[in-house]
Amino acid sequence: MSTPTIAVSPLDRTAMRVRVEAALYEFLGEKAESAAAAGLPTEVVDAVRSFLFAGGKRIRPMFCVLGWHAGGGVDLPDAVVRVAAAVELFHAAVLIHDDIIDDSDTRRDQPTVHRSVADRRGARDHSTAARFGTHAALLIGDFGLVWSQELLHTAGLPPDRMAAAATVLDAMRTEVNYGQYLDLLTTGKPTRDLDQALEIIRYKTAAYTVVRPLQLGAALAGAGPDVARALSDYGGPLGEAFQLQDDLLGVFGDPARTGKSIDDDLRSGKHTVLLALALHYADPNQRAQLEALIGNPRLDAHGAAVCRRILAATARPKVERMIRDRWLLVQRTLARAPFPPPAVSGLRSIADSVIARTA
Amino acid sequence: MSTPTIAVSPLDRTAMRVRVEAALYEFLGEKAESAAAAGLPTEVVDAVRSFLFAGGKRIRPMFCVLGWHAGGGVDLPDAVVRVAAAVELFHAAVLIHDDIIDDSDTRRDQPTVHRSVADRRGARDHSTAARFGTHAALLIGDFGLVWSQELLHTAGLPPDRMAAAATVLDAMRTEVNYGQYLDLLTTGKPTRDLDQALEIIRYKTAAYTVVRPLQLGAALAGAGPDVARALSDYGGPLGEAFQLQDDLLGVFGDPARTGKSIDDDLRSGKHTVLLALALHYADPNQRAQLEALIGNPRLDAHGAAVCRRILAATARPKVERMIRDRWLLVQRTLARAPFPPPAVSGLRSIADSVIARTA
Repeated sequence: MSTPTIAVSPLDRTAMRVRVEAALYEFLGEKAESAAAAGLPTEVVDAVRSFLFAGGKRIRPMFCVLGWHAGGGVDLPDAVVRVAAAVELFHAAVLIHDDIIDDSDTRRDQPTVHRSVADRRGARDHSTAARFGTHAALLIGDFGLVWSQELLHTAGLPPDRMAAAATVLDAMRTEVNYGQYLDLLTTGKPTRDLDQALEIIRYKTAAYTVVRPLQLGAALAGAGPDVARALSDYGGPLGEAFQLQDDLLGVFGDPARTGKSIDDDLRSGKHTVLLALALHYADPNQRAQLEALIGNPRLDAHGAAVCRRILAATARPKVERMIRDRWLLVQRTLARAPFPPPAVSGLRSIADSVIARTA
Repeated sequence: MSTPTIAVSPLDRTAMRVRVEAALYEFLGEKAESAAAAGLPTEVVDAVRSFLFAGGKRIRPMFCVLGWHAGGGVDLPDAVVRVAAAVELFHAAVLIHDDIIDDSDTRRDQPTVHRSVADRRGARDHSTAARFGTHAALLIGDFGLVWSQELLHTAGLPPDRMAAAATVLDAMRTEVNYGQYLDLLTTGKPTRDLDQALEIIRYKTAAYTVVRPLQLGAALAGAGPDVARALSDYGGPLGEAFQLQDDLLGVFGDPARTGKSIDDDLRSGKHTVLLALALHYADPNQRAQLEALIGNPRLDAHGAAVCRRILAATARPKVERMIRDRWLLVQRTLARAPFPPPAVSGLRSIADSVIARTA
């Protein structure tokens, strides 16, 4: 392995990111080489690599590494870095498929994979190029899923740790798929059903983005069920807060910072907590406006501004309160968690930045 | 495990099928139970199960089991059955995605997954229902990919065998994705490029359907590189013959037996060996007809009959000759292969039925 071995403390998120990105870069470099050697098209690896390196917060690998420290792991062995990288590659695949489902044009300030393949395919026949882009992106996502497995299998883990890691990862992958499926079922017809909106958050984000990556890291360290439980107590509310914040950023954020349009969620009619609360607390006139505007694929800037005004008046403060409540729960869990002190510091620091983030 | 333990000889393909199907049925039953217990929609498991049990030749699990015997494995442990079942579940996921890409309406005499989800979604708004069906099927395919991994990880393999199996499976999955990608790149613009048509066959079928499942089984038995090489010498030509036969059945087969329309391949313009040879050997008039008709999504029955007549005159006998040549290679490899005699019998028998199949 030519990956640089940089000493990493649970507080040094930059060093974690560098290690994980180096592992991804190296792995995909090998894939590019073997494709070229076999005379296979190298654009598949290029697409995965461009997507991965266009941005991304690497939040799941960071939680994996923090879980490793919370479980008593010291230093940061290459095997742990590779598993963390496998989680990020899996996530890239999920996003590539997600962008197809949401028909999104941009992600991370770049054209989405299906869009960029379609654009390269040429402008002569738009609908054929769009179909090709979608189908190529479906397969490129499948490559990501497969390669993420390969990163795990070739991480060099001892057999018992591999088995423990696979158990967590298998659960995580099923959960995110269910989250995506629930999202698909409800998008376009948001209701005031807050419980359902929270269920989607739990599958799509709390488990997938925070709890499972943390438990994965702890499993790599050989930690027991008490650590796994405490990580769930910490990660559940933090993951919910993360997604609530994401929903706010998706509607009120700065597109120059998030890289996403602030009208897409409204246009597609995502069944978010923000929207469920707005529909619940709106007066009849506001509700009629929301129901007429949200989920309309031709929603214009004026209509979006009307929605934003109603959401700000009816639901935004309540969502902000929910985020604060969850942040307090996170603090309380950390105060009595069975993690080594440096891990507690790392987990506290990342929780603060998740809550305060603007992108 | 409640899977019935039936004694299996390498010649008893029915017994192998029963064991593999019982493992799939049991695994998906657990998935249905845990979804129901968590209040998650059970239609995802239902869709995977209906698709898997609507038919299918189970040829990849059979090759996996034959590879196990070729590698010196005796009896048929549950762990080997589960890995064989994992290969079949992976294949279901590949087909679900493939049907999206090919925009196929039927598979195994049933509506494809994306079509049946769209049909159930209601007739009020066709294009919205079709979009929903496609996106749900994309996720249902992703579930298949994820669950196939879980079947592998929970097979109960000893660590060294798990590592060997994962290596073969990771290669297999990358290869079939490349096969699918090459297929996508070339579909709609078939050429007389025979080498390219053969390359697609090698990735999409020879490696994926025959060689890798065989090598997977051998890896489970702890067999060495000489067995892996001999299985490649046997499986490579057999896999090519299998796909060449598939291409013939796709154009000249009996839809009542294959469950597939015989016009779809012509309509989509699959870049097959059959078509490459036809374009090569056609006279200028025939070539002009083929180029006008093939790949035309609105190709009608008359046009398809014209194509079939030209393909029968120019290329069909050559493809039949290629199949026979490969069958001879297979026989020659078996005559000197380092496999136990019952495995040789099993491999000879399945080769004969692959070549002679009509569905």
